[in-house]
Amino acid sequence: MASLTVALAERSYPIYIEAGLLSLNSPLLTHIKSKRVCIVTNDVVAPLYLSQLQAILNDYKVDVIIIKDGEAEKSLANFEKIMAHMLTKNHGRDSTLIALGGGVIGDLTGFAAACYQRGVDFIQIPTTLLSQVDSSVGGKTAVNHPLGKNMIGAFYQPKAVLIDINSLTSLPVREFNAGMAEVIKYGILGDAVFFNWLETNKQAIKAGDREILKQMILHCCQQKADTVAQDEKESGVRALLNLGHTFGHAIEAEMGYGVWLHGEAVATGMVQAAQLAKHLGLLSASDVEKIITLIEYFDLPIKPPESMTFADFIKHMSRDKKNVDGQIRLIIPTAIGQSDIFDNITFAQIQQVI
Amino acid sequence: MASLTVALAERSYPIYIEAGLLSLNSPLLTHIKSKRVCIVTNDVVAPLYLSQLQAILNDYKVDVIIIKDGEAEKSLANFEKIMAHMLTKNHGRDSTLIALGGGVIGDLTGFAAACYQRGVDFIQIPTTLLSQVDSSVGGKTAVNHPLGKNMIGAFYQPKAVLIDINSLTSLPVREFNAGMAEVIKYGILGDAVFFNWLETNKQAIKAGDREILKQMILHCCQQKADTVAQDEKESGVRALLNLGHTFGHAIEAEMGYGVWLHGEAVATGMVQAAQLAKHLGLLSASDVEKIITLIEYFDLPIKPPESMTFADFIKHMSRDKKNVDGQIRLIIPTAIGQSDIFDNITFAQIQQVI
Repeated sequence: MASLTVALAERSYPIYIEAGLLSLNSPLLTHIKSKRVCIVTNDVVAPLYLSQLQAILNDYKVDVIIIKDGEAEKSLANFEKIMAHMLTKNHGRDSTLIALGGGVIGDLTGFAAACYQRGVDFIQIPTTLLSQVDSSVGGKTAVNHPLGKNMIGAFYQPKAVLIDINSLTSLPVREFNAGMAEVIKYGILGDAVFFNWLETNKQAIKAGDREILKQMILHCCQQKADTVAQDEKESGVRALLNLGHTFGHAIEAEMGYGVWLHGEAVATGMVQAAQLAKHLGLLSASDVEKIITLIEYFDLPIKPPESMTFADFIKHMSRDKKNVDGQIRLIIPTAIGQSDIFDNITFAQIQQVI
Repeated sequence: MASLTVALAERSYPIYIEAGLLSLNSPLLTHIKSKRVCIVTNDVVAPLYLSQLQAILNDYKVDVIIIKDGEAEKSLANFEKIMAHMLTKNHGRDSTLIALGGGVIGDLTGFAAACYQRGVDFIQIPTTLLSQVDSSVGGKTAVNHPLGKNMIGAFYQPKAVLIDINSLTSLPVREFNAGMAEVIKYGILGDAVFFNWLETNKQAIKAGDREILKQMILHCCQQKADTVAQDEKESGVRALLNLGHTFGHAIEAEMGYGVWLHGEAVATGMVQAAQLAKHLGLLSASDVEKIITLIEYFDLPIKPPESMTFADFIKHMSRDKKNVDGQIRLIIPTAIGQSDIFDNITFAQIQQVI
């Protein structure tokens, strides 16, 4: 079993990566401190993996909360639903919340864990590629608000992350590809060798080669863990992980959460950031082309919705969490494997790529 | 100007205590990092102190949120209202939230600050005795849920606490007395000398002697700061500060938030805890009498509502955040100035004092 550690002093935790982790030999139980557990999952994941998880927890007193699938469910209403459920079932501060699902389930459950009785333990069992390589690692938890994505949340680290590669076999192709946007992101923003590795192995990835997928996920988790260990609360280098997200969040918010998948919006956002970089003379045309080629290989969109105007983008981008003193802050690639934070991009420059 | 520090490494912060702190010489501005500020207050405090605070912030871009007065307002609905307001006004992660009011405003605003864009700075300006001696210090933030008090919240420290003693002049007597319950609590649970000081100075306190009040508040803040510095997340000694709160929260939840003031419920809860201690042979009858005498001097209730049954108490106490493995955990005084955590009190023993 592969594993790595997110090194955050007393908040450090392991990430386990293996095919078949949702089995009786799971390391899960070593991270649960009392007999009370509450699983949060959704109506797509529950029929696939809930019984496996419940079998592992056979000796525990387990409650289950099943919400609907989709980004629209990452809401304050569902947060409140979890609070009410746990209070009704008399969960104490020694209970453990388990997130079984993708990024929506992980972010929502993590935020619930951060706030229930001022904080209970939680464990991430991400079942989508996107949540395995990105959202389950690093302790960013949140719900969306109609006025902006992830606007209500907390930095709150899980006690452990369990990534069962087998869960990717049930993932729809569109969602797998959306996850690949975040995978490609790691290459563009900070690791040219990994970007080249992705180009070399893209067919095996698409074909679902389990050993290649494991290597790929392990690499992404390691890169994210290293970044988070340096800058847990995103006061510096962690912001680079937002490459493509400023444009992407605007697309998601404007189109309505769930119409574009998060990864799809990030893919387009990365292309926009790359085109902006080219426009600013920071990135070569051939690098932009390489980025677009790899993104397109995974059937991801490279252009924003035609219905979205420049004003639509600015409206949402003005509310981005990275902004300082009302100035839009963007992550811009300056080479494949290199990116930086820019505060001084003008509206006119942004307009060039919309 | 008196001041002390809550020592929590990188989360350390000062508490300033003085008459007239809400003036142009306030240390407030040194704790605000950008020009964006959002004040949260209520409709009773706003007419009294809002213009003073706004005068200090004359050079800043200030938004104001005014909610209704009362414990019932410490709700997820008002939390959501603050989130929506701040998003609508495009507040960024560099904004500062200021809580101007009592415990409800402080707890609600602190929780909003903890969660808005995963955390923004906040400053406490407590205007009631109860919030000055207790709730504004130590970083416990929360909102209530119909199923329990403070059930949704976070440990989130302010950047500074400003206590203007002058604000006590406008405080209704009933609320001042409710604050005295928390003051007396510090004496009972851990400081016999302070308890004796309160007995000696009770007339001056009731008369509003400003120098005595300042000494009293300073002492309570120092005791709380020392406790919090030892145990920020309440894994041990901080739980002692909950003396009287297990019974008290049950009264508040059962009667409906705001019917009994928090301090009134705590006063009765401390008497119940003392009577339970006597029943268990842990506390002398004369100590119980001294506790009751001091509590009664400040016109605080010493008996639970007649309408409340044993079952009503147990229902709420079973959901107490301190409980472990479903066992009710109580703080019991073992002398004036000494208390301890007990996990093994039976329902039958609790019933004796209800």
